[in-house]
Amino acid sequence: MTERREWSIAVHGGSGSMPKERLAGREQAFHDALGRAVTLGAEMLRGGASSLDTVEAVVRLLEDDPLFNAGKGAVFTHEGTIELDAAIMEGKTLECGAVAGIRTVKNPVTLARRVMERTPHVFLAGDGAEAFAREVGVDIVDPSYFRTQERWEELQRELRRESTNAVSLPTPEMGTVGAVALDREGNLAAATSTGGRTNKRFGRIGDVPVIGAGTYANNRTCAVSATGKGEEMIRHFAAANVSARIEHGGRSLAQAVGEVVREVLAPGDGGLIAVGPDGVAVLEFNTEGMFRGAADSSGRFETGIR
Amino acid sequence: MTERREWSIAVHGGSGSMPKERLAGREQAFHDALGRAVTLGAEMLRGGASSLDTVEAVVRLLEDDPLFNAGKGAVFTHEGTIELDAAIMEGKTLECGAVAGIRTVKNPVTLARRVMERTPHVFLAGDGAEAFAREVGVDIVDPSYFRTQERWEELQRELRRESTNAVSLPTPEMGTVGAVALDREGNLAAATSTGGRTNKRFGRIGDVPVIGAGTYANNRTCAVSATGKGEEMIRHFAAANVSARIEHGGRSLAQAVGEVVREVLAPGDGGLIAVGPDGVAVLEFNTEGMFRGAADSSGRFETGIR
Repeated sequence: MTERREWSIAVHGGSGSMPKERLAGREQAFHDALGRAVTLGAEMLRGGASSLDTVEAVVRLLEDDPLFNAGKGAVFTHEGTIELDAAIMEGKTLECGAVAGIRTVKNPVTLARRVMERTPHVFLAGDGAEAFAREVGVDIVDPSYFRTQERWEELQRELRRESTNAVSLPTPEMGTVGAVALDREGNLAAATSTGGRTNKRFGRIGDVPVIGAGTYANNRTCAVSATGKGEEMIRHFAAANVSARIEHGGRSLAQAVGEVVREVLAPGDGGLIAVGPDGVAVLEFNTEGMFRGAADSSGRFETGIR
Repeated sequence: MTERREWSIAVHGGSGSMPKERLAGREQAFHDALGRAVTLGAEMLRGGASSLDTVEAVVRLLEDDPLFNAGKGAVFTHEGTIELDAAIMEGKTLECGAVAGIRTVKNPVTLARRVMERTPHVFLAGDGAEAFAREVGVDIVDPSYFRTQERWEELQRELRRESTNAVSLPTPEMGTVGAVALDREGNLAAATSTGGRTNKRFGRIGDVPVIGAGTYANNRTCAVSATGKGEEMIRHFAAANVSARIEHGGRSLAQAVGEVVREVLAPGDGGLIAVGPDGVAVLEFNTEGMFRGAADSSGRFETGIR
């Protein structure tokens, strides 16, 4: 048994294969960005902030960073637009909020929190969610705010690949972001945010705003945020699956995460970050890499890519 | 131990409180409608149809029936529009499809099946899902097709209640429909379809298209369709929760459904229908009533309201 941590934070910035051109010369930039996110979370939690406030703030930081596929720097849809999804969940109350198809809200994770706190609903999508955003007063930006040249070129490559009938399916775009935390009060929380997949069509929604798939938190078991192939996370209710294995199968957090990543999901599907009531975070993936970081009250502080 | 059924079908037509004015003089009409759905399912399964084909056909029948809050006869949004959600899942492969915010597709459950079979995605929403519908060629109708006078008057009552600041929250609208089935090959499937809640706003999505919440199927455990307060079903990943209790907690289907309906959900939240590999269907609810029906190869044939 490890000693209980008073607080704990873990983050991810996406999982997948690691295109050389995307990492070349930038590994340190990714470590730095992940380190900033972990540091922000650690400072908040050390100071007594709630896990809910912390995961929201950390995900906002990652949304604002163009390195990641969430908020600024998100991937483009087939039509050349950007449609963002996010979710947040509080382990104490099981309250949760999720949004999908967001086009003008600077920080979708904050809109998800407004859904949780200011509506009787859990999940708002599309134009309706945008109308709600204007009513509750979150930061609105022009869609051009999210645009980065690198993501635009990714879309152009994908469109060329489609038009030449190349056989290989596109690699899931690395960069979905997420955070899980335990605070000094013993409360767990999780949040996730993404631009989805490059070249997605037809209003595709992935796992991120599907509570139980990409995001889940329950004080009795764990807080989980997923990254990878959204459709596989949905099919296997990946985040809640970890919780259920702990609650009903008597697994430890490490066992439960390990089973879902290595046995339930297939190699290449993605990764999970999770933290339980004892504050020992677990970060696992079955892809070439997962941008990740963790810190806790025992002095742990790390960031990783492969 | 009960004997294994060769095939089994269960359906629901929504759960909730039972407004007298909605049932008055129509109880037999509801029994008849549920009986037709069960009979269709039983005839298909007896004849060797797959559980997937069966739940789709049965849900289509219920979508087409104006008595229920799905397809024709769906409830109205705050804006006086109709936005439909549906999902379908196959227990053998864990393949699944879901749609949300549908306005012109006559049978949303069939569109959900097209998502499952003809895209790499699971979940399409809004205008994108409508564009996909046109591309794959499902029956398109004018939005006025879905309109019934009774649902329109329900919306007007809700809007009046809102404007007078009445305290009580609206009762979740009865009438979401769903089906679960076991076929002769031993394959399970589940499907669910709904108009959501009367007076819903902001592109609200409920549990129906959230795989694991309103709909789940896995040959190893069960097929489940939920009806009731969607936000509660999402928070507790109700349908997948039943599956997880069987898989990891060693519960029987009846125990697992009973725990979720009576311990995890709160009184008044709704109900679940479920069937396992042995074909014995379980139908439970914690509301005043649930429109429901079941039949199997042992000769069971029943419909119920309270």
